[in-house]
Amino acid sequence: MTTFSIKEYKNRLHKTKKEMEAQGIDVLLITDPANMNYLTGYNAWSFYVHQLLMVIGSEEEPIWVGRGIDETAAQFTTWLNDENIMPYTDDYVQSTIKHPMDFVAAILLDKGQGNKTIAAEYDTYYFTAKNLIQLTNQLPNATFKDGTSLVNWIRIIKSDQEIKLIKRAANIITNTMYQAIDRIEAGVRENDVIADIYHSQITGVDGYGGDYTSIVPLLPSGEQTNACHLTWTDEPFKDGDPVILELAGCHQRYHSPLARTLVIGKPTPEMEELADVAIEGIEAALDIIKPGITAEEVELAWRQSIQRRGYEKESRIGYSTGLNYPPDWGEHTASLRPGDQTILQPNMVFHMIPGIWLDSYGIEISETFRVTETGCEVLANVERKLFIK
Amino acid sequence: MTTFSIKEYKNRLHKTKKEMEAQGIDVLLITDPANMNYLTGYNAWSFYVHQLLMVIGSEEEPIWVGRGIDETAAQFTTWLNDENIMPYTDDYVQSTIKHPMDFVAAILLDKGQGNKTIAAEYDTYYFTAKNLIQLTNQLPNATFKDGTSLVNWIRIIKSDQEIKLIKRAANIITNTMYQAIDRIEAGVRENDVIADIYHSQITGVDGYGGDYTSIVPLLPSGEQTNACHLTWTDEPFKDGDPVILELAGCHQRYHSPLARTLVIGKPTPEMEELADVAIEGIEAALDIIKPGITAEEVELAWRQSIQRRGYEKESRIGYSTGLNYPPDWGEHTASLRPGDQTILQPNMVFHMIPGIWLDSYGIEISETFRVTETGCEVLANVERKLFIK
Repeated sequence: MTTFSIKEYKNRLHKTKKEMEAQGIDVLLITDPANMNYLTGYNAWSFYVHQLLMVIGSEEEPIWVGRGIDETAAQFTTWLNDENIMPYTDDYVQSTIKHPMDFVAAILLDKGQGNKTIAAEYDTYYFTAKNLIQLTNQLPNATFKDGTSLVNWIRIIKSDQEIKLIKRAANIITNTMYQAIDRIEAGVRENDVIADIYHSQITGVDGYGGDYTSIVPLLPSGEQTNACHLTWTDEPFKDGDPVILELAGCHQRYHSPLARTLVIGKPTPEMEELADVAIEGIEAALDIIKPGITAEEVELAWRQSIQRRGYEKESRIGYSTGLNYPPDWGEHTASLRPGDQTILQPNMVFHMIPGIWLDSYGIEISETFRVTETGCEVLANVERKLFIK
Repeated sequence: MTTFSIKEYKNRLHKTKKEMEAQGIDVLLITDPANMNYLTGYNAWSFYVHQLLMVIGSEEEPIWVGRGIDETAAQFTTWLNDENIMPYTDDYVQSTIKHPMDFVAAILLDKGQGNKTIAAEYDTYYFTAKNLIQLTNQLPNATFKDGTSLVNWIRIIKSDQEIKLIKRAANIITNTMYQAIDRIEAGVRENDVIADIYHSQITGVDGYGGDYTSIVPLLPSGEQTNACHLTWTDEPFKDGDPVILELAGCHQRYHSPLARTLVIGKPTPEMEELADVAIEGIEAALDIIKPGITAEEVELAWRQSIQRRGYEKESRIGYSTGLNYPPDWGEHTASLRPGDQTILQPNMVFHMIPGIWLDSYGIEISETFRVTETGCEVLANVERKLFIK
């Protein structure tokens, strides 16, 4: 059973082939699990072995290639015909003698693609340097080129059905964020709060269950709030600690991320000011969003706002999000940062997360929003403030 | 604060450099997050952007390279001196103009390594084809070679301190597995059981908290038990369903995986027989384990056992495990399968997971074991049987 209608998948495939044609690509090898899912529905935790989707411009259906024991997962979750599900045997797995890309090359030769222009996602996690070496060795007459993010850019505008799933994810994170904030207090161990966060994320709300998020819950506290990607410990929270919660709801692989910051006890005046600055900046940025604005204009609105208060911030303040797999829920397309001239269009979804980090602590307050016909819609419903416990 | 003593990290680094020398490698670029952690303690969810550890044979300390906002995480978690923590600016992140490997190449040139033999982990998730292209372009006078698994093979024999962490993980999974089995019944949604599993995994036992596992909890039921890497849904379990639980405990990034199978209601005679065959096979394999035996001999003992009962199984039945990051808790070194002549030695740790899948369902019953001086020690403590609810 696929998540979307076959018509929707075929429409996505059509757009992909059109873009391949525009870029002079005959064959696109897709290893990004989100892109594999996007085009076929394929959904399993099998991306720790080599697998890919082969889109051949001249063939109607893509071909799934993966490990033998995952063939049934492809049958269960994709709309592909059985003859387009091509498993390799287990002796290819982590072998020093055989490589799954040899198997892929043999299929391409068999399909008459050995002298064509073949693109692969050169800069994705699951397309290794070894993959490219094996393919170029086995297909000496092919022309290889980089197809990184080709499908990602098609994903950037969501269908209404995709928005529906993202909104369910947003409802989940609204609920989870309040539960987490409620649970945090001095003396409670970080991991015990994380345990409750997971429980709430996966239980879901309104009868919709939660899926695993592509980044684990992040919950740095105290000094570690300026090391935003540290994961939890089993130490207790301390009185006076600032705590950053960077979480997401996820439903059927669609994400709605959200960050809030709280202080256990009395915040310092500096912390309160920093939170004010962050919130003012977010609101300034949200205010200008509408179709036709560029990604960099959104960042500029934020930057000008915080500059008026005397602050500078050097990293990007947001990115496109939606369907994804570990290790990232970001889509690797448009970023809200200087130089990004992507024009915002209805049904784009961004996570705006302009963290500000000082020497000994940091603040993160974020929103995930959908671009609407006239402005933007914030998806979660959690008070935008510095929470105080 | 590092998890292990600086002495232990330096000992690991010494072994790495020795192996580099034996293989004629001057510089090793390490992108596998588990290998980065193994040598320095580095531990953060930052592997979704490019980062690496540079081990230069002639320099005392490795060099950490990563994104600017993760510099503090490197300072918090590693034993490295500040001058060996080298962050790149945020405009390198997912840019189409600049690539983090250009930054890496500049460091290597600066350190006089531009004409040396440089190895990288060509077939790991986090070393992309693009990485290699950028490095070879920027360092035309260097010789490049494949260093995949060089550090992984050093990880295969655990220190007593590592075994201690793995045993805590085993205690966690013993507790979690029983809770999960207890919770499953007809009418309960899959995701509600998963929520409880996460809660138990992260809460931990005996005062030790749990860390995130490198593979999410897998819980296929009914027909989907023969698609072992499908993740959960929000559908309820049904009477008569077989259910496979493939889970792990994790403590400070060290794993102890475990699988069990249960049946809701009355198992068919075929299911009972299949479970018997699987258990007999595991026990035959565990029985012969001791230092000096090869990995393939363990598989052979299993295969001969199930063949006596008329069954064949074609994939490998286990792999080395321990320290890891998503998407896999397997170490990508020794496998229990034909052709693997790795000689078992004390303090190696394997997950033996010989699943058997028939047309419409499958059985998985596994054990994680440590090789001892005289045999092996099974780490979790969960009855080895087909559970019936």
